[in-house]
Amino acid sequence: LASQVIQAYQSFSAAARNDFFDLLLEEYGPDHGQIVSAAQAYQQKPGFETHRALARAVETPRERLFQCLNLPAGGTSALVRMREDLLQQSTPRRVLLRGVEHDLRHLLQSWFNRGFLACRRIDWDSPASLLEKIINYEAVHEIRGWGDLRRRLEGDRRCFAFFHPSMIDEPLVFVEIALTGGIPRAIGPLLASDAEVGDEHQANTAVFYSISNCQTGLRNISFGGFLIKQVVDELRRELDQLQTFVTLSPLPRFRAWLSQQGETGGKADHVGRLAADIHRCLEDRPLWFQDDELRENLRAPLVHLGAHFLLHARLDELPVDPVARFHLGNGASLLQINWLADTSDRGLAQSAGLMVNYHYELDRIEANHEQFVKRGTVVAADTIHDLANELAGETRSG
Amino acid sequence: LASQVIQAYQSFSAAARNDFFDLLLEEYGPDHGQIVSAAQAYQQKPGFETHRALARAVETPRERLFQCLNLPAGGTSALVRMREDLLQQSTPRRVLLRGVEHDLRHLLQSWFNRGFLACRRIDWDSPASLLEKIINYEAVHEIRGWGDLRRRLEGDRRCFAFFHPSMIDEPLVFVEIALTGGIPRAIGPLLASDAEVGDEHQANTAVFYSISNCQTGLRNISFGGFLIKQVVDELRRELDQLQTFVTLSPLPRFRAWLSQQGETGGKADHVGRLAADIHRCLEDRPLWFQDDELRENLRAPLVHLGAHFLLHARLDELPVDPVARFHLGNGASLLQINWLADTSDRGLAQSAGLMVNYHYELDRIEANHEQFVKRGTVVAADTIHDLANELAGETRSG
Amino acid sequence: LASQVIQAYQSFSAAARNDFFDLLLEEYGPDHGQIVSAAQAYQQKPGFETHRALARAVETPRERLFQCLNLPAGGTSALVRMREDLLQQSTPRRVLLRGVEHDLRHLLQSWFNRGFLACRRIDWDSPASLLEKIINYEAVHEIRGWGDLRRRLEGDRRCFAFFHPSMIDEPLVFVEIALTGGIPRAIGPLLASDAEVGDEHQANTAVFYSISNCQTGLRNISFGGFLIKQVVDELRRELDQLQTFVTLSPLPRFRAWLSQQGETGGKADHVGRLAADIHRCLEDRPLWFQDDELRENLRAPLVHLGAHFLLHARLDELPVDPVARFHLGNGASLLQINWLADTSDRGLAQSAGLMVNYHYELDRIEANHEQFVKRGTVVAADTIHDLANELAGETRSG
Amino acid sequence: LASQVIQAYQSFSAAARNDFFDLLLEEYGPDHGQIVSAAQAYQQKPGFETHRALARAVETPRERLFQCLNLPAGGTSALVRMREDLLQQSTPRRVLLRGVEHDLRHLLQSWFNRGFLACRRIDWDSPASLLEKIINYEAVHEIRGWGDLRRRLEGDRRCFAFFHPSMIDEPLVFVEIALTGGIPRAIGPLLASDAEVGDEHQANTAVFYSISNCQTGLRNISFGGFLIKQVVDELRRELDQLQTFVTLSPLPRFRAWLSQQGETGGKADHVGRLAADIHRCLEDRPLWFQDDELRENLRAPLVHLGAHFLLHARLDELPVDPVARFHLGNGASLLQINWLADTSDRGLAQSAGLMVNYHYELDRIEANHEQFVKRGTVVAADTIHDLANELAGETRSG
Repeated sequence: LASQVIQAYQSFSAAARNDFFDLLLEEYGPDHGQIVSAAQAYQQKPGFETHRALARAVETPRERLFQCLNLPAGGTSALVRMREDLLQQSTPRRVLLRGVEHDLRHLLQSWFNRGFLACRRIDWDSPASLLEKIINYEAVHEIRGWGDLRRRLEGDRRCFAFFHPSMIDEPLVFVEIALTGGIPRAIGPLLASDAEVGDEHQANTAVFYSISNCQTGLRNISFGGFLIKQVVDELRRELDQLQTFVTLSPLPRFRAWLSQQGETGGKADHVGRLAADIHRCLEDRPLWFQDDELRENLRAPLVHLGAHFLLHARLDELPVDPVARFHLGNGASLLQINWLADTSDRGLAQSAGLMVNYHYELDRIEANHEQFVKRGTVVAADTIHDLANELAGETRSG
Repeated sequence: LASQVIQAYQSFSAAARNDFFDLLLEEYGPDHGQIVSAAQAYQQKPGFETHRALARAVETPRERLFQCLNLPAGGTSALVRMREDLLQQSTPRRVLLRGVEHDLRHLLQSWFNRGFLACRRIDWDSPASLLEKIINYEAVHEIRGWGDLRRRLEGDRRCFAFFHPSMIDEPLVFVEIALTGGIPRAIGPLLASDAEVGDEHQANTAVFYSISNCQTGLRNISFGGFLIKQVVDELRRELDQLQTFVTLSPLPRFRAWLSQQGETGGKADHVGRLAADIHRCLEDRPLWFQDDELRENLRAPLVHLGAHFLLHARLDELPVDPVARFHLGNGASLLQINWLADTSDRGLAQSAGLMVNYHYELDRIEANHEQFVKRGTVVAADTIHDLANELAGETRSG
Repeated sequence: LASQVIQAYQSFSAAARNDFFDLLLEEYGPDHGQIVSAAQAYQQKPGFETHRALARAVETPRERLFQCLNLPAGGTSALVRMREDLLQQSTPRRVLLRGVEHDLRHLLQSWFNRGFLACRRIDWDSPASLLEKIINYEAVHEIRGWGDLRRRLEGDRRCFAFFHPSMIDEPLVFVEIALTGGIPRAIGPLLASDAEVGDEHQANTAVFYSISNCQTGLRNISFGGFLIKQVVDELRRELDQLQTFVTLSPLPRFRAWLSQQGETGGKADHVGRLAADIHRCLEDRPLWFQDDELRENLRAPLVHLGAHFLLHARLDELPVDPVARFHLGNGASLLQINWLADTSDRGLAQSAGLMVNYHYELDRIEANHEQFVKRGTVVAADTIHDLANELAGETRSG
Repeated sequence: LASQVIQAYQSFSAAARNDFFDLLLEEYGPDHGQIVSAAQAYQQKPGFETHRALARAVETPRERLFQCLNLPAGGTSALVRMREDLLQQSTPRRVLLRGVEHDLRHLLQSWFNRGFLACRRIDWDSPASLLEKIINYEAVHEIRGWGDLRRRLEGDRRCFAFFHPSMIDEPLVFVEIALTGGIPRAIGPLLASDAEVGDEHQANTAVFYSISNCQTGLRNISFGGFLIKQVVDELRRELDQLQTFVTLSPLPRFRAWLSQQGETGGKADHVGRLAADIHRCLEDRPLWFQDDELRENLRAPLVHLGAHFLLHARLDELPVDPVARFHLGNGASLLQINWLADTSDRGLAQSAGLMVNYHYELDRIEANHEQFVKRGTVVAADTIHDLANELAGETRSG
């Protein structure tokens, strides 16, 4: 039966899927009466039996249905795709169906527990069908065909992915690494298809330069941090001369933040005014980085603003920038801001060409993570604090 | 951290494990205050947000802890062993800790969803370490060493097991099958180590003669029914001449039921009196089956009582006998009662030597299952109804 | 030691390899004195001992050396590459070193016995590193990148290769197959990257449209015929509705033969004169196939000459054309000549656009092979004999 | 066709196989006329062509036939079994058929070249069907059932075997190793089923205590020496604290040699007389090792005679003892003679309870091997030379 539902769902048109979601919403949602009476029973006599009864009443019928839909082969990936469909509904529908989506997410979160995931290396001996997916799923620095991919899998590169045993052909998340001598300050040389292949046994640094989630249906069920830590372990086992583990990461919300500074009417402070000026300049002169003088003039303010942005721009007490939030939340620290590090269209449009090295120091990860989670502290190198302080100093003196 | 907890737990003494369980009970149990206030909020304004908040409040901290303990390698099997430890506590402790056990079971039930299990054939080319476990886990008809095992894996036998991807070396449940010409009426010939090996391509019947659960920690998380159905599919694919799928099963509660009939003072009816008489006779003459006359005298009453027991002896509206409950619940029907079918010590002590063939008829499984679950109906062959009716007739006329 | 020789050889320059070959020629060649005395001993007293002594004397020291060089890992492929180097020497050197090459070939022929080869299917799940080799080794119809390759591995296509256990990553020979409804008369539609993917379960015909040897070092050690027969077996097992097994093959020596007819001064007969005329016409009008009138005028003579060429153009009593020799030697028969079947540059330059279907009829393969090997008989469809006879008739009457 | 011959052969009775061998002898043997004329042609004009023609003439038709019989699946093992049948013929038949056997051996020797063999570890996770073969093939120290085998595969034991890719389920030769602290002087403690399991990471010594050839049909096609060297490499890679690689080996011809000394009438020298006395004593008192006084009296003469036997008892200039010949030929040296090291029935009957440690010193293997092969030198520890010299001194002075 479950197998028929799964097959039917897969053949459904968008309209039929909508009907199916409406059914899940209306017929398989929480039973209010049952919950209320179980809640009252619990309030009158809290204990194992009444707690269990309440838990059972609170669990929706559709959660049990989803458990059944997982029984046949292919069930797990069908449920992942179902959540993808839910997330791609129009906004009002997404709000309407958020109970359905929440139940599905709750289940997937339990099933895609890191303990069930397998980390596998991906290389040029991997199946072409899998590599084709890597090409398609790469979300940070586009892979421009098989030749480009091949370079990213040479001896001085690594690629690892997490897989779930019920979806063995589908990577969940993958990370690309360059093995280098020293910490790179720009992405271009790493991505060049014709870059000379270095000797992995001479490298002292592993650079995580791209990490991509593959399954929209698993959005917000995060395993990227686990992957990075696992890969650090694997690399240390394979190449024990590696000393430094860093990322080379964009600041994807930097330009948007600059532009918002301009929008806020008050421009209360020096930082706000500077950001607004710089924003206008970048807008007016999109090819600014090709003009020697302009470029040099922009260097200092952009780097200072970058430091300020990373340290102080917050949303709900956490950094505004999602990449910063991700790596800092994993326990990495801010090591270095790199000027003109990514001059691709996207790098300029989102990060004003800046990139950051986040630093994964094994013996500090735990402490960094604690500080970040408990107090929102961004652990950063002194140079970055200095940059932000200089800006603040100007602000105070300005 | 999780990895340290797991390792610590494994090194714990029984006393330390008890302390750990007490901790889980007292410190990681439901937060009554939070539940009550979430319940009130829900009652005031039922909706997505209040329902989600209530669900979160109802979920115990230890459920989240168990999710974390699963992160490191080996976590899943550690949790299974943890539940085994809980189930093996003394009765008063088990009652005390039932909240802990319930939370763990709830999680394992979700994780050991049939969709995540892989069915693998076990044969003489399987790893010796796995076969050794099969020898140890066999719970129905003891495997007496490697020679006996080898016979059970010859060409006219099959063995299949379910495995979970996080416990790849540990069978969860396995089933042993004999491929025969016709439906066997006794277990002895099937188990004889020196039985001639039949031609699997001539067999028309597959006999499920033993099914064993391997993990105490997964007790009551049932996948045996799924295994039987999957194996029926596999066998039909491999050997398309197979027509009949039956079990050869004990009645493990039959003697206990007979003895209870004697105990209930009233002996209100004919069946009760007959059962009590027969029970006393079997007790007084433990070697009854070796005495030609006595054996023949016992034949009719035992077979009649067996039919009555299977059809009418109920507990909570379901058959008293767990094997009957299992196969009937899977959608099998009662086909035939076999006299003197198992004269092993256990066969006599539990089943008075009787065995039953349950019949898995593919096109009736669904309907049988529905009837059994909804109305407790035991679908049985006419001959079995006749046997039971004859007894009832005597009762009425008696 | 062997391992050092192998490594040294691989690092050798071309000059050093030449020195190595000279050494093998001069120091490890046959010991004339020993052979002569063993031969005399045998002549005086033929028997087991003298025969064995003669066999040992005749075996060259370098054959024993090659056996030793195979001991270390990678030895086998090093020896295959060694033979490749020998075959690529300049002609006078090749003649000089033919004793060395012969000994190596003798050994490789024994080691690459078909009984040691494994046939494996190649598909889109194969390692990219292997697929890259398929792209590079394809010798008949060039694979134009990964998109083209992917099309050749879709559901209505098959690819199989032979591998040797000591060279597991290196295909020795592979064949590409299209599954079609009916026998195709042109290669273009089969090779179109954007051709619609057919249903393999509806196909009644398997078309072997490309077969490529991969290892120059194994030239003239033929296993292509074994591969075709094995693949026919595999396909019949997988898709039992397949009825017809044919090739779609070029006539790579046809244009060369046409041109030779013009060169032989006498042009003694009608066929020779016609061939010379046609040859001149094709030379003069390289775009003949784009001119409607010319194309129609050339059709009949080209098809007649093709039939004559395949049936009667011989070298050492076997067909001149190597593709014909290969398939007819495998026991296939000539089924059909296809006009304008390959208008690629190579197809026009070698085969004048013609292609042939060779027919692998399972119950005739043995008999066809016998006739071909013993008497040089080319088994062909009546229509092809008719075409050749018409030409001969004109000759006689001309 | 080849496949039919192979199947027919396997179904043949012994008589039919004899007929088949006679056919191979008479119809597929060397063509004397052809050989003679090719030999004459070569003598007249030695060169590439005449040498090749002679080589072809000398090769027997049955060698080509064997090559063909290898084509079908299972061909290789059928040929191995064919040679086994040949080796098990009665002596006169074996002499008669030695040409057939020789040709088969010549081919198998080339095909079972070490470069084609794969070394695989065998452990408790290996297939039961393979382990069953290990039990059956063990030829030195009998494996007494599955419990005994299991002990031999625990953490402080290793087992490795060579396999040929065409006979993947059949071990060719396997070796058993104990990982110990120090060099053991007796076999009993190593073989005890209930011996405590040691810590492999604390061991400094690897003891090769049993090596068994599995395939009679490959007798005298030796790969045991390669296996030992390969296993030394594997063990050093796995456990880099291992320092010493020794055997614990019997002297299987020692008692036979003692008894022969008695038989040779003259008893010319002291050694001969002593050997004869000791032989008689061992014969008369088979339980000598249980008598404290007798045992002590026998100790010195037996150990001295053992040293003399290993160093000086020769056949065709090589040691009489096959185990000594094998290990010394591999480049090991004689390290130590152990008194009362094997009191099993076989150990007493063959080796008078003595055992030897042969020493595999990696940086001396090559030199030892050279000395042994070129000059028959037995490299031995000074203590062993001393023992032998003492005996010789007594001889001189006696």
